[in-house]
Amino acid sequence: MPTDARKRAMRRLSIARGHLDSIVRMLDKEDVYCVDVLRQIKAVQGALSGAGDVVLRGHLETHVATAHGRGDTTEIVEELMEALRYR
Amino acid sequence: MPTDARKRAMRRLSIARGHLDSIVRMLDKEDVYCVDVLRQIKAVQGALSGAGDVVLRGHLETHVATAHGRGDTTEIVEELMEALRYR
Amino acid sequence: MPTDARKRAMRRLSIARGHLDSIVRMLDKEDVYCVDVLRQIKAVQGALSGAGDVVLRGHLETHVATAHGRGDTTEIVEELMEALRYR
Amino acid sequence: MPTDARKRAMRRLSIARGHLDSIVRMLDKEDVYCVDVLRQIKAVQGALSGAGDVVLRGHLETHVATAHGRGDTTEIVEELMEALRYR
Repeated sequence: MPTDARKRAMRRLSIARGHLDSIVRMLDKEDVYCVDVLRQIKAVQGALSGAGDVVLRGHLETHVATAHGRGDTTEIVEELMEALRYR
Repeated sequence: MPTDARKRAMRRLSIARGHLDSIVRMLDKEDVYCVDVLRQIKAVQGALSGAGDVVLRGHLETHVATAHGRGDTTEIVEELMEALRYR
Repeated sequence: MPTDARKRAMRRLSIARGHLDSIVRMLDKEDVYCVDVLRQIKAVQGALSGAGDVVLRGHLETHVATAHGRGDTTEIVEELMEALRYR
Repeated sequence: MPTDARKRAMRRLSIARGHLDSIVRMLDKEDVYCVDVLRQIKAVQGALSGAGDVVLRGHLETHVATAHGRGDTTEIVEELMEALRYR
């Protein structure tokens, strides 16, 4: 993975992790309201999608765009399609 | 939020947090492969969806199903539709 | 289903149907570009989500919000959770 | 778009179109049940995703995998990332 993409994905995932901490703390309180928790979970999912986009872009540029030259297009595309299936 | 749903959601989110930690550690290695990271991010998103389902079910049973009796159906439904928009 | 929700969902789905027609016609042309088709499919999925939201809102207001009064909260919530699983 | 992908996508979208027709007919009946409609909409969304996968695979193999050789990797990847944003 390109170093730049790796660092940016790490930063985004670390932020998501801190956010997840705050949701676990929210759930410690008995009077927490369900919809507030739903919103926070959704925000973390958005952050994870953002990190996934950084990794995906790096992969497309580095590994997929050069596949024809290496001769492994079918394997690379099959692998990516499987990884994208449940994004 | 019902105590049972709160505890189960906490457990799931704590597991997702540990999983997120492992992805951040993966990204520390220069030779990490993009698609491996994509798969792990997807797995954490799945865990977050699972936690979200626990919270949503508790909310439907506790707050939405009783809305007509309280007379606040419109507010409760509007609030939930907004929260579900980007699940 | 409330008549209003039914009519609005019908209108949205009929529009989505016409849109789907246009994509099928696009695909009739040999020089159609993949990403153009991807964008159009995504637009139809958005329209379907919009129609789904209309139906979901009507269901929450009509059937879920009154479940406690009828005494069938568990069944109604279980049924909805299953339907929401892959939204 | 590769002819094979084009034909397969057309077939899938034509099936989805027929399915959409049946949902519109369902909605013509006053006693239609919301959750039945939700399930059918979800099934059509699944069919559209399937057609999208066919188009995406063809694009990855034909246009993205050869981008480095053409020298337009950045444009091709940017275009695809935008198209994937709301899959």
